[in-house]
Amino acid sequence: MKLARFSVNGWESYGQVEGDRVQVIQGDIFGEHRLTDASYPLERVRLLPPTRANTFWAIGLNYAAHVAHQEHALDAERIRRDSSAFRPWQKGTNCIIGHNDYIVLPPEADYVHYEGELVIVIGKPARRVTPEDAPNFILGYTCANDVSGEGAWSKDLSNWRRKSSDTFGPVGPWIETDVDPHNLEIITRLNGREHDRGSTSGMTYNCYAIVSGISQFATLRPGDLVLTGAPGSVEQLHPGDVVEIEIPGIGTLRNPVRGE
Amino acid sequence: MKLARFSVNGWESYGQVEGDRVQVIQGDIFGEHRLTDASYPLERVRLLPPTRANTFWAIGLNYAAHVAHQEHALDAERIRRDSSAFRPWQKGTNCIIGHNDYIVLPPEADYVHYEGELVIVIGKPARRVTPEDAPNFILGYTCANDVSGEGAWSKDLSNWRRKSSDTFGPVGPWIETDVDPHNLEIITRLNGREHDRGSTSGMTYNCYAIVSGISQFATLRPGDLVLTGAPGSVEQLHPGDVVEIEIPGIGTLRNPVRGE
Repeated sequence: MKLARFSVNGWESYGQVEGDRVQVIQGDIFGEHRLTDASYPLERVRLLPPTRANTFWAIGLNYAAHVAHQEHALDAERIRRDSSAFRPWQKGTNCIIGHNDYIVLPPEADYVHYEGELVIVIGKPARRVTPEDAPNFILGYTCANDVSGEGAWSKDLSNWRRKSSDTFGPVGPWIETDVDPHNLEIITRLNGREHDRGSTSGMTYNCYAIVSGISQFATLRPGDLVLTGAPGSVEQLHPGDVVEIEIPGIGTLRNPVRGE
Repeated sequence: MKLARFSVNGWESYGQVEGDRVQVIQGDIFGEHRLTDASYPLERVRLLPPTRANTFWAIGLNYAAHVAHQEHALDAERIRRDSSAFRPWQKGTNCIIGHNDYIVLPPEADYVHYEGELVIVIGKPARRVTPEDAPNFILGYTCANDVSGEGAWSKDLSNWRRKSSDTFGPVGPWIETDVDPHNLEIITRLNGREHDRGSTSGMTYNCYAIVSGISQFATLRPGDLVLTGAPGSVEQLHPGDVVEIEIPGIGTLRNPVRGE
């Protein structure tokens, strides 16, 4: 089942996506809700970020191929150190945008790249859950672009600007609830051309280990989002670019890029 | 004016604190609202964290005396590096608790200390504001305890557990809207005994510089909270302790401590 958050005629709702239409859901998708008879053509609605996340967690360097790529491209010592343990971090919820929204490059950023990733959507409050129990606390999965500055910003040490500048967190287009998260392809296209293709089977910490690990210290709440890492190579973004993250079985998150 | 968020009889509201009573506010304190005739004795209500923050920003090492104390106590090289630039970070909103709530020490933490701090409460969406304009985007100020693990956890590099474990972010007791934020004393007491006293006049980056600085890249939204740094020394917390952060002119944030 595909669950989308959308706005239409200045009004916001959740809906269930079927083909080229979205059927309105009444109520709270994390609690009591029901499917109504009302529906809209997808092309008439604006897709919003699929949840209002309280926290936007991330695991960096979660694929061996990505670690190797980053070691080659960036500060090898930092990459080796950061990939040597389970070390989640938080991307600011301020940076979350939806499908088709612009990624805006601040003039201060000399280098910004995309990172196409699978995202876990939390469905129930999770605290000290085991990896075996973790699936019961997950509502579904969606696509994200962990837009990241490097260059001079990588010297910030805190990730604040390079990872959490406004618009650096595109998420969507919707939540897929019925999918095996560890057997998915992640395809990243820049201006229509495929640049990277990886499989979630290559994760170092899989989705259930990640949810379990974070929940040992921090309660995950309904709607919270967890980035699971980029599988392979990354590419610089420039104004005028269009970047697409496709995860077959979920959907395609598309975002144009512009300067501020 | 003192604005408190509270619950009473299973019902939540904002109110204005006057002496030992809280008068109910109807509406949204960040938008349309009015004071009603209803009021409760403060001792009958439960004070809640003063806002539902979307982001919980922090500036570390913002007082020379605290930098000196931490250099002495911890990894001097890390402290010097982290205090050498404007480097905000985010504490997870998952860790926010209110006045009188328990700080809970996870069994995995070998060392946890308090950090008494002044907190900025954002009142209006702020993006690319100047330090001169910053006061117009601030609703008021409150107290916080930036509870922090050190010891083995300081090797995490990411602050996730040591700064964002559940309950590591006490905030309150309420928001004071009429106060000069740069001429306040911060007094920290452990089990009734004063352990630290500092003045906000010693900030490296003052409140307006902090709000302006963060807003260059990340929009601050109504209710967002910004920790401004601990002024002096810190002390380890143990189960059974009671820690109080008093900022005369604002109020006293009190939290008991227990093991998990």
